[in-house]
Amino acid sequence: MTTPVRTRVAIIGAGPAGLLLSHLLADAGIDSVVIDQRTRAEIETTIRAGILEQGTVEVLEATGASDRVRTAGNRHDGIELRFAGEGHRIDFAGLVGRAVWLYPQHEVLKDLIAARLAGGQDLRFGVTAERVEDAGTDRPRVVAIDADGARLEIEADFVVGADGSRSVAREAVTGSPTGGYFREYPFAWFGILCEAPPSAEELIYSNSPDGFALISQRSATIQRMYFQCDPEADPAAFSEAELWDALQTRVPGTTLREGPIFQRDVLRFRSFVAHELRRGRVALVGDAAHTVPPTGAKGMNLAVADVLVLERALRALLQDGDERLVDAYAETALRRIWKAQHFSWWMTSMLHVAPDASDFDRLRQLGELRSVVESEHGRAYLAEAYTGWPL
Amino acid sequence: MTTPVRTRVAIIGAGPAGLLLSHLLADAGIDSVVIDQRTRAEIETTIRAGILEQGTVEVLEATGASDRVRTAGNRHDGIELRFAGEGHRIDFAGLVGRAVWLYPQHEVLKDLIAARLAGGQDLRFGVTAERVEDAGTDRPRVVAIDADGARLEIEADFVVGADGSRSVAREAVTGSPTGGYFREYPFAWFGILCEAPPSAEELIYSNSPDGFALISQRSATIQRMYFQCDPEADPAAFSEAELWDALQTRVPGTTLREGPIFQRDVLRFRSFVAHELRRGRVALVGDAAHTVPPTGAKGMNLAVADVLVLERALRALLQDGDERLVDAYAETALRRIWKAQHFSWWMTSMLHVAPDASDFDRLRQLGELRSVVESEHGRAYLAEAYTGWPL
Repeated sequence: MTTPVRTRVAIIGAGPAGLLLSHLLADAGIDSVVIDQRTRAEIETTIRAGILEQGTVEVLEATGASDRVRTAGNRHDGIELRFAGEGHRIDFAGLVGRAVWLYPQHEVLKDLIAARLAGGQDLRFGVTAERVEDAGTDRPRVVAIDADGARLEIEADFVVGADGSRSVAREAVTGSPTGGYFREYPFAWFGILCEAPPSAEELIYSNSPDGFALISQRSATIQRMYFQCDPEADPAAFSEAELWDALQTRVPGTTLREGPIFQRDVLRFRSFVAHELRRGRVALVGDAAHTVPPTGAKGMNLAVADVLVLERALRALLQDGDERLVDAYAETALRRIWKAQHFSWWMTSMLHVAPDASDFDRLRQLGELRSVVESEHGRAYLAEAYTGWPL
Repeated sequence: MTTPVRTRVAIIGAGPAGLLLSHLLADAGIDSVVIDQRTRAEIETTIRAGILEQGTVEVLEATGASDRVRTAGNRHDGIELRFAGEGHRIDFAGLVGRAVWLYPQHEVLKDLIAARLAGGQDLRFGVTAERVEDAGTDRPRVVAIDADGARLEIEADFVVGADGSRSVAREAVTGSPTGGYFREYPFAWFGILCEAPPSAEELIYSNSPDGFALISQRSATIQRMYFQCDPEADPAAFSEAELWDALQTRVPGTTLREGPIFQRDVLRFRSFVAHELRRGRVALVGDAAHTVPPTGAKGMNLAVADVLVLERALRALLQDGDERLVDAYAETALRRIWKAQHFSWWMTSMLHVAPDASDFDRLRQLGELRSVVESEHGRAYLAEAYTGWPL
């Protein structure tokens, strides 16, 4: 029988949610142990998207979690919506006085890992959580296998599942590994990474008769672009010329700057919210609690919002013995989650061409896009949601 | 062979669109003949809904078409959206500085008929149009049967189909009696008229787990209310107690003031836009061109907007020989029509419970309603569309 590791908060998952939570808890003097099944190198080198809401940037900076966001990231003061052959800028700065930052998630993770290790965090890579036990007691436990294949138990006052969309903590909370509200979409994104200069200064969200495309940027020399595809599409089945043709057709009016494509992937679209976000002393945050389609750029931001709500609740519980905020965690977090689910669904349904869309649906969609861009209120409504509701 | 009646503009339909068009044309010195298959009494006594956008009211007043709107109608400075047991006022006046007027369509028609007859308009009731001929020539004709069963032909420089959703003019424009983009909805409205005092000062749009309800007003003693029902529902199959129960359940938080129900009907929901709005010298306006579900209160307002666009075009054509505005009529009118179609679809889908909605859909819908009411921009976007885009 192994002697369990003891800590106040056991956190499964060293993604943005888990790491930020441990960071905030440490600031409040609350110890935690963070485990992740991946290696540090894996986490730091997997290239991921990252649009940070202004509030997310402010949190990362104010807490010392990242001081590189504003210098290494790129502030974007707007996006472009393109449809019916015309571009329409949504001027975030002018409409709502806010902005977003393009700063890839793996850069956020590098900053957070460095900050946590410098702060003496017990942060264990290569440790695979198998299950969470005793959620209903005040001594919940994480049962895991460490990097050497040995059994590891972490006993805590509270366990947090920050372990992504394939969460193992979810079962202890919802009673089933998959229990949740969900929606599938009849399309996916074909994403490429290429070596080329930027084709545009800001993101272009383009609705075209052939389907949606998103032109985004990574750096001066690396670009990320996506186009709507069949969820069953085989990434290997397209030549580079076919990929450029597919992209270019969907962004009429802009000549894309091409270059060698060095990564390609198909991103499935799914909306998911777990049936429960907390049971007893186990709670879910981030992708373990919800998945959004990427169109609204809400994934990482929503994880940060969950963490802020839960961290306040854990301080009240563990420092003052006050359970009220923990009891209210799910309800509080869900208000923002369902708004973000709506926004992600809205951006998705407004911009993509559903395979079964009728001519009426298609013309109504153009009427909707026109309603939004022709109205300062419509543009501001979109800009406010995109740049993030108050945290 | 009958000698055709000659006029400059032959207008089929003495609804708001046809009558207002004849009124504006007369002001410009352009003669028209208006026919309608109904009797004057039928038109003036069929009780209909009527939310007039501020722009519609301004047009009716400025042109002398109605001077009773502001005195006999009721200005509404807002509506209430109710969901999850809570009411949220959309303050039109505060948000966009505009209002709507509750003034039933049959009252508008009484005013317009009186004004037209006083102005010497050739306005013929009980005349049934059978078809429009020679649309492609500069001498199009309406073939009709008059009140005595005799054949009547009206030869004109231009023919306007303002003859409602069962338009006979549509075939001459689109090539088929039904040719258009359309969408059906899996629900309808069960409407009642009752003798009772108002249950609320402004309209309540209520989303409830049991379905949608709309509490509206007619006068101090007559009220109009609706609740979402199956499109196949039989109006006679409900007792008054059942109707009040159905309504009351869907508007939690308000005690409805009951009274004898003296009219009941089931209103089917349909979105429709004709494939073409003009061919040669025949054009469609109002319900002949498009149908919207009633949730957005856009029907009569959209008819007025069509008429303003077409009347300018007819003046240019008939007074200056300039065909450009007539050529542009469809495109100009369709920009507003598709925005109104979107708005009507949006209000409908946001507020009704679709029979096949998943739990995800239902919670997303509540997330959407919350997004709108919690955002001043969201409320203003709705208020701007409801009170009407600029004409």
